[in-house]
Amino acid sequence: MTNTTGKTFTVTSFGSSHGKALGAVVDGCPANLELKIEDIQEELDKRRPGTSKITTSRAETDKIEILSGIFNDKTDGTPITGIIKNNQHKSKDYENLKNTPRPGHGDYTWKEKYGNYDYRGGGHGSGRVTIGHVIGGAIAKKLLSKFNIKIISHVTQIGNIKAKTVNINLIEEYANKNPVRCADLEAAKSMEELILEYKEKGDSIGGKVEIIAIGVPTGVGNPVFGKLDGEIAKSLMELGSVKGVEIGMGFDVINHRASEINDEFYIKKENRDKKNIGTRTNTSGGILGGISDGMAIVAKIAVKPTPSISQIQNTVDLEKWENTKIEITGRHDPCICPRITTVSESSLAIVIADNMIRSGFIHPSDLNKTIHR
Amino acid sequence: MTNTTGKTFTVTSFGSSHGKALGAVVDGCPANLELKIEDIQEELDKRRPGTSKITTSRAETDKIEILSGIFNDKTDGTPITGIIKNNQHKSKDYENLKNTPRPGHGDYTWKEKYGNYDYRGGGHGSGRVTIGHVIGGAIAKKLLSKFNIKIISHVTQIGNIKAKTVNINLIEEYANKNPVRCADLEAAKSMEELILEYKEKGDSIGGKVEIIAIGVPTGVGNPVFGKLDGEIAKSLMELGSVKGVEIGMGFDVINHRASEINDEFYIKKENRDKKNIGTRTNTSGGILGGISDGMAIVAKIAVKPTPSISQIQNTVDLEKWENTKIEITGRHDPCICPRITTVSESSLAIVIADNMIRSGFIHPSDLNKTIHR
Amino acid sequence: MTNTTGKTFTVTSFGSSHGKALGAVVDGCPANLELKIEDIQEELDKRRPGTSKITTSRAETDKIEILSGIFNDKTDGTPITGIIKNNQHKSKDYENLKNTPRPGHGDYTWKEKYGNYDYRGGGHGSGRVTIGHVIGGAIAKKLLSKFNIKIISHVTQIGNIKAKTVNINLIEEYANKNPVRCADLEAAKSMEELILEYKEKGDSIGGKVEIIAIGVPTGVGNPVFGKLDGEIAKSLMELGSVKGVEIGMGFDVINHRASEINDEFYIKKENRDKKNIGTRTNTSGGILGGISDGMAIVAKIAVKPTPSISQIQNTVDLEKWENTKIEITGRHDPCICPRITTVSESSLAIVIADNMIRSGFIHPSDLNKTIHR
Amino acid sequence: MTNTTGKTFTVTSFGSSHGKALGAVVDGCPANLELKIEDIQEELDKRRPGTSKITTSRAETDKIEILSGIFNDKTDGTPITGIIKNNQHKSKDYENLKNTPRPGHGDYTWKEKYGNYDYRGGGHGSGRVTIGHVIGGAIAKKLLSKFNIKIISHVTQIGNIKAKTVNINLIEEYANKNPVRCADLEAAKSMEELILEYKEKGDSIGGKVEIIAIGVPTGVGNPVFGKLDGEIAKSLMELGSVKGVEIGMGFDVINHRASEINDEFYIKKENRDKKNIGTRTNTSGGILGGISDGMAIVAKIAVKPTPSISQIQNTVDLEKWENTKIEITGRHDPCICPRITTVSESSLAIVIADNMIRSGFIHPSDLNKTIHR
Repeated sequence: MTNTTGKTFTVTSFGSSHGKALGAVVDGCPANLELKIEDIQEELDKRRPGTSKITTSRAETDKIEILSGIFNDKTDGTPITGIIKNNQHKSKDYENLKNTPRPGHGDYTWKEKYGNYDYRGGGHGSGRVTIGHVIGGAIAKKLLSKFNIKIISHVTQIGNIKAKTVNINLIEEYANKNPVRCADLEAAKSMEELILEYKEKGDSIGGKVEIIAIGVPTGVGNPVFGKLDGEIAKSLMELGSVKGVEIGMGFDVINHRASEINDEFYIKKENRDKKNIGTRTNTSGGILGGISDGMAIVAKIAVKPTPSISQIQNTVDLEKWENTKIEITGRHDPCICPRITTVSESSLAIVIADNMIRSGFIHPSDLNKTIHR
Repeated sequence: MTNTTGKTFTVTSFGSSHGKALGAVVDGCPANLELKIEDIQEELDKRRPGTSKITTSRAETDKIEILSGIFNDKTDGTPITGIIKNNQHKSKDYENLKNTPRPGHGDYTWKEKYGNYDYRGGGHGSGRVTIGHVIGGAIAKKLLSKFNIKIISHVTQIGNIKAKTVNINLIEEYANKNPVRCADLEAAKSMEELILEYKEKGDSIGGKVEIIAIGVPTGVGNPVFGKLDGEIAKSLMELGSVKGVEIGMGFDVINHRASEINDEFYIKKENRDKKNIGTRTNTSGGILGGISDGMAIVAKIAVKPTPSISQIQNTVDLEKWENTKIEITGRHDPCICPRITTVSESSLAIVIADNMIRSGFIHPSDLNKTIHR
Repeated sequence: MTNTTGKTFTVTSFGSSHGKALGAVVDGCPANLELKIEDIQEELDKRRPGTSKITTSRAETDKIEILSGIFNDKTDGTPITGIIKNNQHKSKDYENLKNTPRPGHGDYTWKEKYGNYDYRGGGHGSGRVTIGHVIGGAIAKKLLSKFNIKIISHVTQIGNIKAKTVNINLIEEYANKNPVRCADLEAAKSMEELILEYKEKGDSIGGKVEIIAIGVPTGVGNPVFGKLDGEIAKSLMELGSVKGVEIGMGFDVINHRASEINDEFYIKKENRDKKNIGTRTNTSGGILGGISDGMAIVAKIAVKPTPSISQIQNTVDLEKWENTKIEITGRHDPCICPRITTVSESSLAIVIADNMIRSGFIHPSDLNKTIHR
Repeated sequence: MTNTTGKTFTVTSFGSSHGKALGAVVDGCPANLELKIEDIQEELDKRRPGTSKITTSRAETDKIEILSGIFNDKTDGTPITGIIKNNQHKSKDYENLKNTPRPGHGDYTWKEKYGNYDYRGGGHGSGRVTIGHVIGGAIAKKLLSKFNIKIISHVTQIGNIKAKTVNINLIEEYANKNPVRCADLEAAKSMEELILEYKEKGDSIGGKVEIIAIGVPTGVGNPVFGKLDGEIAKSLMELGSVKGVEIGMGFDVINHRASEINDEFYIKKENRDKKNIGTRTNTSGGILGGISDGMAIVAKIAVKPTPSISQIQNTVDLEKWENTKIEITGRHDPCICPRITTVSESSLAIVIADNMIRSGFIHPSDLNKTIHR
């Protein structure tokens, strides 16, 4: 199960950047979910590079082909398999990478671990592999939408430029308006300029992305191991380039005392409707004791500068066994934050969908009129 | 598997703070590991409260009883079960908490999720449940020590007081010298004073803890899902009070460009011994592409101020269905950082042991002279 | 997860026959299930030896102690841990078994696999370990009873004596009337005599047991891997002494052609109620394509003669490394069939409960009035 | 994980008989295993129908396409994905099956469970889905061959015709000589005639198949849950048409007393080599206490007559909600035994490979010269 995430709603990822194809098998999605190929393609298009001058200009069409699991535009309860065939790249371009691992990448550890592995363009460790995440995420999002849950994200910092706080209901609309995917439109402009500056230098820069799940009911998650915040942290930390994960207030809790940041409970409405308990603040990020509390679930990630840069770097030659230098050619993202938004939404959506099912909020037969329990 | 962590080396946690007992079943530890009851008791003693004036003064003896899995002072390959019986507490002390959830705790979400649950002192969500983590961690540490792997931790920040960097080889010795478990002895004093200040106010304060695994070989972990950093993030975020996890440089990567922080490879020694490749810096925290690279594995956690404070707080009455106030009596930790060090070491040790086995570095029969493969 | 069965409703078994205690952790049982300690004790009493002259006369009191998971006579949603402490046996009785494996037992393979292991009385491989199965099974049965599902069993053959078919609704009542647990009361007498005959000879005899789940709705199970019949086969074959498992008609299908044994569908009642489809015959044993079809689920097992016999047998000395002989003293069951009935019911109950939850027929919050989805 | 088998060496099956493609993702195979596409195609060809007059005459070319996991004719440590595209069938042929479930098939339970599902030709429940098993099995076999383990099978009974016992070393050679795959060449002829007789009648017949693993070392398996015999029973019972599984002597143990069938141990060779302990008989089928004992692992399955027959059968109309009749047209196997041999070998191979890895006999890095532990 090395390449599978989730326990009930699962995504198994396969393929490498320069092999025949890459994709994912999504298992555990309830039958009868209306799902068109366009629902998945749309999410893949958001992740796709080459859509603005601040992403890599590599041309990748990334057209998905569905091999199984959808029948008459609905899920049929069996595994959904989606693949994207790779264009035929000239593998020789990568010969120089064969024995000289790129700093900051997994080339070295992968080569050591597997001995034989498709080193071309990062292989199964390539950022292209997140296509599998997005296939799974697109299906998870569609499923969650039936239960009025929405997953959004936005870039909140690039280098030293921080975005101002934006009303949660406006984040998506505003973030979609600019290539940086920052909801503070003024900051977005500065961020874009900063990224282009690093692009020109042949260097790269990182940032911070916030991912939010709105509408998750109280009671999703587990108590001790497999806490909802634990599973979110895992799935986000698994994204290449992510070096930190925060839930709610995150590291800023260190600067406050309990009496300031304990989220106090209150009854939301006059009518005392049982479902209307909330917290006045949300420093907990919607999770208490590993279980959702009905508030927005908020996670933030630290994204490192893309390690692929055009400057010459020191490395070793694993064949000749000597110190050497490497120059990475090709076109790379000077900042991966804008593109990681879609992928991180996918990761969060998969975790929420998986936990909604396991916690009994989504049942395998919810969308099925046939079965009666 | 809701209350189980790990895939091959697994820890199943059970019990609540005021039930009959709590403990853990540890499965998947290779047979023939020398393991005495003292090895586990020693770790539990480190976690135990009441050992200094900056921890809660509650008296908990926490004497472990081993029910299975150890035979003639060695593991026998079957599940190791350790339990600690609870003293008989007066349950009536907790009647006032029955319907008024404490802010910042899991009382509310647990009550909603389970309907019936042992609310006394946090029940299965109590910090006392980390006894199970420590039982598992003590065994994991003993196992890892046979493979020359060491797990250490220290407090690096309390409130606004930050510790200076200490040589990795001195951390353990220095941290053991003071109740705060901070390796910068000067900072430790100020931290102790700050904690006592909050204690007097009936408030609490958080901090930062760094946990390190030394000696993990290259090749431990997984490539896409179940990356080593992802699993570490999960296990640390699952600890109560933790709101953020960093691997290596963490959130600070945002303030740097790739050319500054890409960890460049070099050959460690003149003799070109194959095992001697390293990175000059370790911003990656010992993990590249989800797989260990032979450097120290470094994680940091943000610990929030303990939510149990003696000040009056707003909450709701879930029976009368109205807003109300709560006053939490009893003795609580004004800062959980010193005690969380042992628990977080346990979490890291379990993840490393589990992954060492899964990655083929520890075999079930490694300690067994009988079997021949 | 070596010693855990199930995926959502799970049972983790620990302990050995001569260690301090043995028991099980049952995780995944929905909260709010009324569960008294007597519910479990009652099932354990059925399994307990010494209740008739055809079982071993060893005195085992087997009083269960619940350490966690039950609060105010209801499950609380957290792991339920039950243990039974072993009487202090004289371990020296077993010294002669230390290096001379008993034929037909797991002594040899366990010793080889684990090197160090508690060989006394079979250790973790002892039949006593099925106490853990019964703890899990008792809870599963109680849960299933809330959904009108009943698990029954009876002995259908001992040696060459076969029981006549008995109406499914009378099986339990009749089987409870005699120590052999055979529902054909006449055959039961002959079986009892046959068993006593073997007992006198210091030999043992096997038989056949049928286990039935009544009331399982249509739609429980999985399609390709993890089929309901596959999981039942696994859990029954895992019982010591079981060498064969049949579902429905079993091996007898070989003697028939499809046109004879295909279970034809029909509408059960005049009123055309949607739930009333059935099959005229039930050669399939209630499972089609890995999924329950609403008919009774029927499994049969072949139980070998208990390998512990008092006659002298050939074996090897694993220390001196030479051929030798062994004489097993002590009191043993001349036929394990009567006692395996309870254990096999437990195994089936656990599989059905686990699959009912996974297939969405039992939800974690079904018994909880608090949560609203 | 509904459609995945195995824990470490895993096979995830997807696709349906009339969808775009079907296949499998095989994860957990160590890197550096020499694996050519022909290794898999060869096994698929054995399973393929239309190769003799006793199998269905449907033309299925079944050419495999590898999408990932093989690099330079070796496994690369990442998931191996193999697919077979379906020919474009005329779906209208199946319209009559849409609401009238075929007796003995999973049509009814699947339709009930999933509501929407690809009913054409059995969909994901079609026998064609065992292509996924064979892809996984071919890789497992190749891996096991590196450790001198061989998986063989043969038909031992068709209807009332039983094959004579054949020397274990000759089984494969002889079984390959005839379309029935029976190692008793004389019986094979009678079996062939019997099958053709049923074919002419538009009926079908079942039989018995024996599957054997030769060369499995002592120590593979688990002690209580997940016993090796339990996992074998599961994987074989999961094959469509299988209604019974036996390990070793199976149901025949009922006819014997312990003193007759307890497998006595002896030292195999004069030289007292530690590895040379064996049992004089093998009624246990190579497994004692859930763990392999070094003898051949022997399993037998009861295969029911293929339920697809051309005779008119009673069924129900799930739309009109009335009793009706069904006539299944098309070409079907009058006996599935010959073709199930390859599939059952695959199932056994996958279980053995998965358990060899989990028990530490095959390490992820065994075939990798790079890593040093």
